[in-house]
Amino acid sequence: MDTIGEFRVLANDRQARVGELVTAHGNLTTPIFMPVGTRATVKAMLPEELKTMGAQIVLGNTYHLHLRPGEEIIHELGGLHRFMNWDGPILTDSGGFQVFSLSQLRKLTEEGVEFRSHIDGSKCFISPEKSIAIQVALGSDIVMAFDECLPYPATREATLESMDLTLRWLHRSKAAMMNPDQLLFGIVQGGLDIDLRLKSLEQITSVDLPGYALGGLSVGEPIELMHQLVAQVAPQMPPEKPRYLMGVGTPLDLVLCIDSGIDMFDCVLPTRVARNGTLFTWDGRVSIKRKEYQRDPSPLDSTCQCYTCQNYSKAYLRHLFMAGEILSSRLNTIHNLHFYFELIRCCQSAIREGRWDQFRHNFVTRFVKNRVSS
Amino acid sequence: MDTIGEFRVLANDRQARVGELVTAHGNLTTPIFMPVGTRATVKAMLPEELKTMGAQIVLGNTYHLHLRPGEEIIHELGGLHRFMNWDGPILTDSGGFQVFSLSQLRKLTEEGVEFRSHIDGSKCFISPEKSIAIQVALGSDIVMAFDECLPYPATREATLESMDLTLRWLHRSKAAMMNPDQLLFGIVQGGLDIDLRLKSLEQITSVDLPGYALGGLSVGEPIELMHQLVAQVAPQMPPEKPRYLMGVGTPLDLVLCIDSGIDMFDCVLPTRVARNGTLFTWDGRVSIKRKEYQRDPSPLDSTCQCYTCQNYSKAYLRHLFMAGEILSSRLNTIHNLHFYFELIRCCQSAIREGRWDQFRHNFVTRFVKNRVSS
Repeated sequence: MDTIGEFRVLANDRQARVGELVTAHGNLTTPIFMPVGTRATVKAMLPEELKTMGAQIVLGNTYHLHLRPGEEIIHELGGLHRFMNWDGPILTDSGGFQVFSLSQLRKLTEEGVEFRSHIDGSKCFISPEKSIAIQVALGSDIVMAFDECLPYPATREATLESMDLTLRWLHRSKAAMMNPDQLLFGIVQGGLDIDLRLKSLEQITSVDLPGYALGGLSVGEPIELMHQLVAQVAPQMPPEKPRYLMGVGTPLDLVLCIDSGIDMFDCVLPTRVARNGTLFTWDGRVSIKRKEYQRDPSPLDSTCQCYTCQNYSKAYLRHLFMAGEILSSRLNTIHNLHFYFELIRCCQSAIREGRWDQFRHNFVTRFVKNRVSS
Repeated sequence: MDTIGEFRVLANDRQARVGELVTAHGNLTTPIFMPVGTRATVKAMLPEELKTMGAQIVLGNTYHLHLRPGEEIIHELGGLHRFMNWDGPILTDSGGFQVFSLSQLRKLTEEGVEFRSHIDGSKCFISPEKSIAIQVALGSDIVMAFDECLPYPATREATLESMDLTLRWLHRSKAAMMNPDQLLFGIVQGGLDIDLRLKSLEQITSVDLPGYALGGLSVGEPIELMHQLVAQVAPQMPPEKPRYLMGVGTPLDLVLCIDSGIDMFDCVLPTRVARNGTLFTWDGRVSIKRKEYQRDPSPLDSTCQCYTCQNYSKAYLRHLFMAGEILSSRLNTIHNLHFYFELIRCCQSAIREGRWDQFRHNFVTRFVKNRVSS
């Protein structure tokens, strides 16, 4: 019998690994990419479509759902799973990142953060206890601790102070957890300084939790610094727990960070750029609005098994995008998410079959051979 | 063996009738509602979704497709069916209505209409021959003759002149038809004057064609005048040919005009208002943004078999609409189109089973009992 929160490493190849995490709504195979359903919907997608493409889990956003429609309403209606018609696992972030990036007039105290809603300017307050209470009301399977997210760059002194506050908030987050079926993950901060990151890692892992995340990355720093930091920190994270790199990233980021031992990723990138007409292929990014596609009868990627590539030409995708049709967002999102899930499936197989290094090398070489890619 | 263009009346009840029209891409059962795919997509929908809901045919728009991406491109790519991945019948309008309603700086001559594109202001010209050539290039199954659409109201003299021009253009449209698999329908004009309508009907039906349409209605006139006119004109249209009421209408319009003997309808209404949060039920229209739905766990219509009503609460639909999510347009469009197709299926059954009058009476009484409805 599986125990909720159990994590098993099934295969290793270099630092990369395949694992399995048990949640209340099913088991997850890692490495995993988690599509972002900010406001109780992965933009433009139905739950059934996500499942068909291979999504195992979706993200919900505590900050957005708290402001609209409000967690009491979602709780009354049977929780976030039922509200959005998704019966698989759900991870909710803590709201910390959005409070610090989206809202105005923040006032930070030991107790928590006062801020104004980016929607209507109304005054709100989130503390560790409040963030957990919201996530408990939403009923998510994986709950993120409430942390302070410093902007990039930050001074060493500010980072140290922030890390200490984040640790005190983690203790309060853990104390507020009521439901053993919901798994609390702690978030390692510490900016881009390796010493501070390792210190934060030590602080956060001093609290026994079912998983740990790296936060505060992909916030504007040069991407090479992020890759370097993850390469140094991820292998130091507890190997018997899932390692989650928050808010990352591009296909290249995924492969490089899996190579460093990361297990879980989430990012709005594939869905957001899809709506802007950017599509991912094994040869890098493609902008569907390119004039040369106007009469092109071929699919975006003739080797791709996604619904979009199986049924539509580049010319049609270009037409829909130029005309601003909703179907453009749908077909592009289907392709990009399919690409991410397929990439992850390929990573899993390569790790299981002991050919990770070769796969990684081939992928990186092919994907970045034109400079548009990243 | 079915002959393309053949129309069989299968059942009559009062003026209402059930029929079957043979097209190159399959047979249509009438009465029929045809969803509008203006720019080679029924907004927010996949072809497979339309089929699942019961769509038999979709509309394409000659004016829009001529301007973007251009009919030569679509032809090169295998025609409109292949371009948009729809293998059922397609009807294209002639572009006349859009030339007269959307474009600027029109110059009307005997030869045709010069106008400027509403997209980029470029100069364009459409004649009957050009309209047919575009529709032939698109490869539609039902082709509409190019007619002049007068604004409402128009003088008797202007209407008479316009009718004569429309007749001359019909002869030219027919002469331009090359492919016997494409069915040309003529369009009866004549404004709201019954005498002029009957005269136009006589003119247009003097040309032997596989179907006839009533055009120039639902252009701003009081809806009661439209109902009255259709009640007088439709029964005079050739009973052995399909009768198509262009650009109409609401569920009430459909039932009343089926009662007058109309067989075919098209309208952007169910898809357009869906995106604006208005949903159809057997009890009239509902605005999903109503505050009272904020915590409502029930489906929009608990008797409805559509995907939306089977899986989502009013509270969720309201949330998606308020948040401006693409999924709002999708779920609302699914519901409204399902409602239209279900209404049409009920009409067909009632006519076949000889209970049309009762059905019509019950529907109208229930649907209009609250004044929001129409």
